Amino acid sequence: MPDTYNRSGASPPSPTLAPTYEGDFVLDRDLPLDCGRTLACPTLHYAVYGRLNAARDNAVLVCHALSGSALVGSWWPEIFAPGAVLSLEHDFVICINLLGSCYGSTGPGAVNPETGSIYGPDFPLVSIRDNVRAQAQLLDSLGVRRLRLVLGGSIGGMQAIEWTIQHPERVQRALVIGVAPLGAMGLALNHLQRQAIQHDPEWLAGRYLPQCPPRRGLALARQIAMISYKSAPLFEERFGRNPNRNGENPWQLNGVGGGLIGGRFDIAGYLDHQGTRFIERFDANAYLAILRTMDTWDPLRGYASPAEAYARIRARLLFVGISSDWLFPADTVRRFAEEIRRAGAQADYREMASDHGHDAFLAEQAELVRLLQ
Amino acid sequence: MPDTYNRSGASPPSPTLAPTYEGDFVLDRDLPLDCGRTLACPTLHYAVYGRLNAARDNAVLVCHALSGSALVGSWWPEIFAPGAVLSLEHDFVICINLLGSCYGSTGPGAVNPETGSIYGPDFPLVSIRDNVRAQAQLLDSLGVRRLRLVLGGSIGGMQAIEWTIQHPERVQRALVIGVAPLGAMGLALNHLQRQAIQHDPEWLAGRYLPQCPPRRGLALARQIAMISYKSAPLFEERFGRNPNRNGENPWQLNGVGGGLIGGRFDIAGYLDHQGTRFIERFDANAYLAILRTMDTWDPLRGYASPAEAYARIRARLLFVGISSDWLFPADTVRRFAEEIRRAGAQADYREMASDHGHDAFLAEQAELVRLLQ
Repeated sequence: MPDTYNRSGASPPSPTLAPTYEGDFVLDRDLPLDCGRTLACPTLHYAVYGRLNAARDNAVLVCHALSGSALVGSWWPEIFAPGAVLSLEHDFVICINLLGSCYGSTGPGAVNPETGSIYGPDFPLVSIRDNVRAQAQLLDSLGVRRLRLVLGGSIGGMQAIEWTIQHPERVQRALVIGVAPLGAMGLALNHLQRQAIQHDPEWLAGRYLPQCPPRRGLALARQIAMISYKSAPLFEERFGRNPNRNGENPWQLNGVGGGLIGGRFDIAGYLDHQGTRFIERFDANAYLAILRTMDTWDPLRGYASPAEAYARIRARLLFVGISSDWLFPADTVRRFAEEIRRAGAQADYREMASDHGHDAFLAEQAELVRLLQ
Repeated sequence: MPDTYNRSGASPPSPTLAPTYEGDFVLDRDLPLDCGRTLACPTLHYAVYGRLNAARDNAVLVCHALSGSALVGSWWPEIFAPGAVLSLEHDFVICINLLGSCYGSTGPGAVNPETGSIYGPDFPLVSIRDNVRAQAQLLDSLGVRRLRLVLGGSIGGMQAIEWTIQHPERVQRALVIGVAPLGAMGLALNHLQRQAIQHDPEWLAGRYLPQCPPRRGLALARQIAMISYKSAPLFEERFGRNPNRNGENPWQLNGVGGGLIGGRFDIAGYLDHQGTRFIERFDANAYLAILRTMDTWDPLRGYASPAEAYARIRARLLFVGISSDWLFPADTVRRFAEEIRRAGAQADYREMASDHGHDAFLAEQAELVRLLQ
C-alpha cells in the first residue's frame, strides 16, 4: 500500500543553499588510524560556503552526524538565516564528509588502492580522532589555520570536542549539541541496529553487490534509530493509537502472516516510510562503519584523567542539551559540560526545550537558532 | 565466545513454589473472538495454588505478561512471601496461560481441530477481552464466582482491568502494575520486534517447522524488548561503556564482518545473552500473536465514552507506576488511574521508585511487596 503523502508533519522545507565549492581532497599520505591500521591516501569529500577572508579569521567547521553529508547548506539551512549562527557573507564555512560514509569520502564502498577492490567489510575502524586528524590536513590545504567556530550535533559534536582537545591552538569556540560519550543505552541501540543489518541474508557478511544491498536490514536499523532520535511525547501527539492513515486496520489482517500480522498503526506506517526513504540514500556497510566510529568514541582515550584531556582545551565551549533527548539525555550533556569545566576549560550549557528528542537540532532549527542568540 | 557466567546481576533466585494443581481446561464450545473469527474449543492451561475455601471468597486471579506462564509461583514467588500480597494458606490463586502463548494454552503451535493442522500463521487475533471471556469460563468450572483480587503487571494488568469492566460483579479488588493503553512509542517498539521476526528467512511467513524456527529474528525481537523493559540508568550502572566481560575488545575486530563489526561492549554481550536465553524458551509465532493482543488492547472499544466504560467498574483498583518505566511511563499510569476515577470508580495510585524500568515488578519483587503493604 503506497504512502502517497508527506509524513514528516514538519514545517515546509527551507530553501537549501548551494555551496561555493564542493569537491574532493585526497590526502598525500596514508592516514594512520587509532585502531592500528592505516587508510591508504583517503579522500575527504567536502563543501565550502562563503569565502576565506584576507585575515583568515572567518573559518567555521561544521561537523555532520551519522547519515549527514558535506552539504550542510542542505540539511542545516536555518543556521545560515540572517542573524542566525552562520553568515554566508562573513563566514567561510567548511563541512567535511565523515570517513566511512557513502557521500564521497573514503568508505566501505570505495576502492582500496592497495588491492584494487572495494573495501567492503575490510574497511577499518576509523575513530572520531582519526577523522579530526584527516580534517586538519584538509584545512591546512585550504589555508585555514584557525577556526573561529567548530560545531555539530550528535556525532558532529563528538568531532567538535575532539577538535578542541587535539588542536587546542586552532579552535576559538565550539558549539556541541546533544552529545556526550555514548552511554550503555546508546551502545545497546547501536547493537540492535548492527544486528538488524547483519541478520539480513543479503548482507553476505558485508560482501553484497551494490545492486543487491541488505535493504530490509538497513531499513529496520533506521527504524530502530528513529525511535531513539524522536521522543515518546512527539510520537504520541503525532500518531497516538491511530490506525495507519492509508486505511489499514489493526484489527484486521494485512494479508501477510495470516492472523499474526495485522494492519499497521500509524506510527508503524511512519517508521516503515522512514526506513524506505533511508535505504534510497544510504549504504549498509557505511552505516555499520559509522556506528563503530560512534561507539568507540572516548575523548579520554590515551589520557591519564579527564583533567589531563580537558585541560588541553583553549576554546570556549557551549553545550546544548535537548530536553526530550533520550539517546543523549540533557542531564548527561550538562554533566559532561561540568566535567570539562572542572578541568579548567570554559564550557557553558544551555538547554533546548523541545518534544522532538535528539533530532531537535535538525527538526527545530529555528528554535535552536533562537536559543543561541 | 561462550558466556559462562550469570549476567543477571540480580539477587539469588527465590525458591519457586509448586502449584497445587496444574492442568488444562478445554472450553466446551467455540470462543467467538472480537476480531470476528472464532477459536474452536480452545484449551486454557492453568495452575492453582492453595485451595478454594468453603465460602468461596478467597479466590485470586493472577494474570501474566507477554512471555509469562501459568506458573506464577515460579516467576513471582515473592508475592507469596509471608505477609506479602498472597498467601498459600489463605488464598486460592489461579493463573491462566494467555491464548496465543506457547505454554499450554491454544496458540499458533496448537492443532486447529477444524483442519487437523497446526494453526501457524492462521492463528487469529485474540484480544485481551477474548482472553478474559475464556478465563471466566474456566473460573466457572472451578466454582469460582467472585475474585477477591485480580492482579497483574504489563499485559497482565490489561487483563485485570478488562476483568473489572467486563465482569464488574465478579471482582472485588484489582491491582494493576505498570500499564495503560499502549502509546505510540510502545506500538513502535512492537512494530520493530515484529519486523525482526518477519525478516528472518527462517520465519517462512509463519510456516516454519518447529525444529527450524526463526531463532535470530526472535532473539533480536527479545533484545529490542529488553531495552524497553529496563532503563538507561540501570544499564549505565551495570554495563556503562565496559568492554564485554568475556574479553572482547571493541577496538579490535571480532572475526565477523571485517572492520565493520568490532568486539562487543558489555551491554551488547548482555543483550545477546538475553536473546539466546529467550529462544530456548519461547516461540516466534506465539510472540507475534501476543504482540498483537497487546497492540490492539483498547478498554474503550465498543463504549461511547471513557465514562461509559469505566463507570461499570465496581472493584476497588490500585494502580502502580514504576518511576523509571519508559514503556508505560509512571505519569501515563497515573493519568490512566485518574481517568478511571473521574468516571466514578475507586482507583488509587502508588509509585514504585526503581531503576529497573518496566521490569521492576518482576526484578524487584520485594520492593513491590513493600510498596503494597
